[in-house]
Amino acid sequence: MKLGRLNHVGVATPSIADAIPYWRDMMGATAIGEPFDLPAQGVKVCFIDTPNTQIELIEPYDASSPIAAFIAKNPAGGQHHVCYEVPDIYEAKAWFEAKGAKVLGEPRIGAHGTPIFFVHPRDMGGVLTEFMETPKGDH
Amino acid sequence: MKLGRLNHVGVATPSIADAIPYWRDMMGATAIGEPFDLPAQGVKVCFIDTPNTQIELIEPYDASSPIAAFIAKNPAGGQHHVCYEVPDIYEAKAWFEAKGAKVLGEPRIGAHGTPIFFVHPRDMGGVLTEFMETPKGDH
Repeated sequence: MKLGRLNHVGVATPSIADAIPYWRDMMGATAIGEPFDLPAQGVKVCFIDTPNTQIELIEPYDASSPIAAFIAKNPAGGQHHVCYEVPDIYEAKAWFEAKGAKVLGEPRIGAHGTPIFFVHPRDMGGVLTEFMETPKGDH
Repeated sequence: MKLGRLNHVGVATPSIADAIPYWRDMMGATAIGEPFDLPAQGVKVCFIDTPNTQIELIEPYDASSPIAAFIAKNPAGGQHHVCYEVPDIYEAKAWFEAKGAKVLGEPRIGAHGTPIFFVHPRDMGGVLTEFMETPKGDH
């Protein structure tokens, strides 16, 4: 497998609504997507374009959200994960499993509408790492 | 100010030497730079290219390193900062200060040889954020 594009950096936030003015007025972001709910993943999501990649703001969808503990520990929010693109999600899963890395669950549809999975940070230098299949027609 | 390129994601590691085989063999990185010391910043550095940005591995240079506490808290390493490019470092500093953000020290030469500064995570949604002047002739 070859290292793919960094699709996005996932940043957890207690409130996407409060984070948007920061990204617009302080950071100068000009392409801020419409926030949307991803209840199957337990998060609300908002993508912000940089010239070469994206920031994915994620907010807990409810108290049972997988990022609720992260926000409890980091009330202001913080860096949560990074996401790389792969050409084929099942080949990528087999690749990491063959190397002994802990793939967290089966591939499922992610925020960009293509299948994704996460690999446990203990096998990724302490970084929670997501892999997503490159959207068809992109790049 | 307009949001610039994500120049790199800074990933702290207890050992660049041990991290390189992970990036090469597990992540499939094909462009791994030569590690170098940046004693003025208290870190050893290694850049890894993705197709659209870079990962900056940083290892404590010595026990007084500014990232020593991070590694003590995260012995396996982890996401440490993100770095965006700006056209002019002093204009960027004035911009953030005018908005009340805490710029950490004066601009100084960073790992890419151009001036950089960091902004305190409390003003950046919990994310330690570096700004670096775009290298001349790049992009």
